[in-house]
Amino acid sequence: MTTDPHGLLTAYTTDELLRRRSVKWREFPPDVLPMRIAEMDTPLAEPVAAALIAAVERGDTGYVLPGRLPEAYAGFADRHYGWQPDAGAIRLVPDVMSGIVEILQIVSEPGDGVVVNTPGHPPASYWIDRVGRRVIPSPLASGSDGHRLDLDRLEHDFASGARAYVLCNPHNPTGLVLTREELTAVAALAERYDVRVVTDEILAPLTYPGARHVPFPSLDNPAAARSVAVVSASKAFNIAGLKAALVVPGPEAYADVAAVPQEVSEVAGLMGVLAAEAAFAHGDAWLGNLLAALDGNRRLLAAQLADQLPGVGYHLPRAGYTAWLDCRALGLGDDPARVFLRRGRVGVGSGPRFGAEGRGFVRFNFATSPDRVAEAVSRMVTARDHADAGVDERRD
Amino acid sequence: MTTDPHGLLTAYTTDELLRRRSVKWREFPPDVLPMRIAEMDTPLAEPVAAALIAAVERGDTGYVLPGRLPEAYAGFADRHYGWQPDAGAIRLVPDVMSGIVEILQIVSEPGDGVVVNTPGHPPASYWIDRVGRRVIPSPLASGSDGHRLDLDRLEHDFASGARAYVLCNPHNPTGLVLTREELTAVAALAERYDVRVVTDEILAPLTYPGARHVPFPSLDNPAAARSVAVVSASKAFNIAGLKAALVVPGPEAYADVAAVPQEVSEVAGLMGVLAAEAAFAHGDAWLGNLLAALDGNRRLLAAQLADQLPGVGYHLPRAGYTAWLDCRALGLGDDPARVFLRRGRVGVGSGPRFGAEGRGFVRFNFATSPDRVAEAVSRMVTARDHADAGVDERRD
Ligand SMILES: Cc1ncc(COP(=O)(O)O)c(C=O)c1O
Ligand SMILES: Cc1ncc(COP(=O)(O)O)c(C=O)c1O
Repeated sequence: MTTDPHGLLTAYTTDELLRRRSVKWREFPPDVLPMRIAEMDTPLAEPVAAALIAAVERGDTGYVLPGRLPEAYAGFADRHYGWQPDAGAIRLVPDVMSGIVEILQIVSEPGDGVVVNTPGHPPASYWIDRVGRRVIPSPLASGSDGHRLDLDRLEHDFASGARAYVLCNPHNPTGLVLTREELTAVAALAERYDVRVVTDEILAPLTYPGARHVPFPSLDNPAAARSVAVVSASKAFNIAGLKAALVVPGPEAYADVAAVPQEVSEVAGLMGVLAAEAAFAHGDAWLGNLLAALDGNRRLLAAQLADQLPGVGYHLPRAGYTAWLDCRALGLGDDPARVFLRRGRVGVGSGPRFGAEGRGFVRFNFATSPDRVAEAVSRMVTARDHADAGVDERRD
Repeated sequence: MTTDPHGLLTAYTTDELLRRRSVKWREFPPDVLPMRIAEMDTPLAEPVAAALIAAVERGDTGYVLPGRLPEAYAGFADRHYGWQPDAGAIRLVPDVMSGIVEILQIVSEPGDGVVVNTPGHPPASYWIDRVGRRVIPSPLASGSDGHRLDLDRLEHDFASGARAYVLCNPHNPTGLVLTREELTAVAALAERYDVRVVTDEILAPLTYPGARHVPFPSLDNPAAARSVAVVSASKAFNIAGLKAALVVPGPEAYADVAAVPQEVSEVAGLMGVLAAEAAFAHGDAWLGNLLAALDGNRRLLAAQLADQLPGVGYHLPRAGYTAWLDCRALGLGDDPARVFLRRGRVGVGSGPRFGAEGRGFVRFNFATSPDRVAEAVSRMVTARDHADAGVDERRD
């Protein structure tokens, strides 16, 4: 029984995907199966495609306005999370990282410490550093049941003089979705140590049934009220190249979000706004189909790995379409992605790029056809079988 | 005889334009004729529209790459300016202002002075200030033949300790196109005072026959060799909302341009890259038709003003589709745009927003149908006739 009756993951042939101009199918030579960059091999949701084509026909490609995107997100948040943010308080930014960095510049001073969990999305450190704040890496805990937030470590890092905390929830690369209880504990710590919380909720629309996303600013807590969520339709609807994200304040953070400069909002893309508005307002049905299809693949990957690469540690992500694979038992060194690429011609994400905790791990994007997921695993097997202790892999 | 046989300026009805989502037709109430924001009321060039629609059909909206945009610009520069920049040295940025600001951060230190001519594009000061550099305003000279670069004043400002000069050529808002001789004189001054030149050449593709655009880094001069041009298809092809611009080094500025961070390039929009690539590679015919149509309007505006508002000073721009109108003789105060809006329901750009030299001026965008150009002038007449010494215009 297919989990993808609409064929979202099988819509394009490999030749068609190779004609795409975005990063995923361009970053490796064409004989490499590309499973690295977090883009999906799906067609656009119909309402999104229709909005974009109508804009092209109107010649509507001039300077951006937020339009009804804040209202569309507020409606989506209400339907999906039972949260009613105030659309009038939401500001447009080009992407999630820009939103995080703008807010950090408003709520902290140069030199201040900013806690970020590791492993974590690599660009976060670059941007935090660029604006003169100090990254304080706070490792997640990991055990036989996968990763979880380490509240003791977080308290230790807050106590070390942090001024802000960038919390990625749901979490990239592990797919962890924090519970309401965990988030409440984070808020209590933030309150105690006077730390401002900025949450990266880009993966929230991709939360699988079984988990439940709780927007941080929706919590009934003073630190949550002062928090800011940065959200986007870009990951769930595959429109990262169109450049639109939103900064959404908790009830006590309106002034901070209002301080995001107009000039920064103007760096966002008009196509991003129109696409995201259509996605949040009219994309629920497509998103439901997508999640069912991705759920099929996240389980398929588990079955394939159990069968063919049982040494690899894998816990089903609770959100998102990347798998964080513990390859340490394969003996492929700190960066198994290199071995998989050179020996197996499959491109997966390099674990160490997500921080020191990523040594021995790879990130595997399964938002493609089931055939390609299976093919990628079999290429990983080939690579493992042909790796000669990883010696010459260290060279390049 | 029409100057617009392809109907580029008359393609859309007002009702259709009011359905656009970009700034121009949204920033005023619908009874106001909007002539302020620098967008055009044209359809997209066919190659641009085709590229965008093909991308939507491929589901090709993921992370941006520069693709063949640098090559497409290099080809355009060769055909139009006889300049062959090295495509391999060109970097992608989201927009012209981002490009200028990135380069300023590479070639100068916090606190350094940056010369900018006034009147000038308002956001420049915001961004220069934001990165901790000091704006040194350098007024253009103005006389009975319009504006021109004031080389004595420029030398004075360079000598006052400037580290960089942001030269807008062709110039917004005056439409001035500097000659090779003037540019060579600028380069000699930059050489003498060790000032790094960054040129904003966004308007260059819109240079009318009769003037000739010379890319600053193409000059045979050491300061020009160290200069950087920031270019984009956004103004000429009306795609400012798609977010792509290029940073193009002179032969001795490769290392500075190479230092533009990858993370900044990734804020550009994929649709912007695809559109600009199509525009620069295949847009010459459309651009020729556009310039003929705009040329008709720039002369129509002259005739209308001479006939109906002879007190207004207007010199035909040599590039671009905005007219910089000297309204001081009308006695409408420092900011005549307010009077035109309130009394005439026509929205034009406020002169003082371009700097103190803009007092008494307005900027008028004529990239629309001839009928609307004529209607806008007649609304300005109405406003002038009904202005009561501008008293209550000062209120809002
Ligand atoms: C958790 C997370 N945050 C941020 C980003 C980057 O988002 P943006 O391109 O909107 O800055 C990604 C991209 O994959 C991500 O996974
Ligand atoms: C001369 C000039 N430079 C820069 C800009 C802004 O360009 P961008 O949106 O690419 O930053 C404009 C916009 O009208 C302009 O006229």
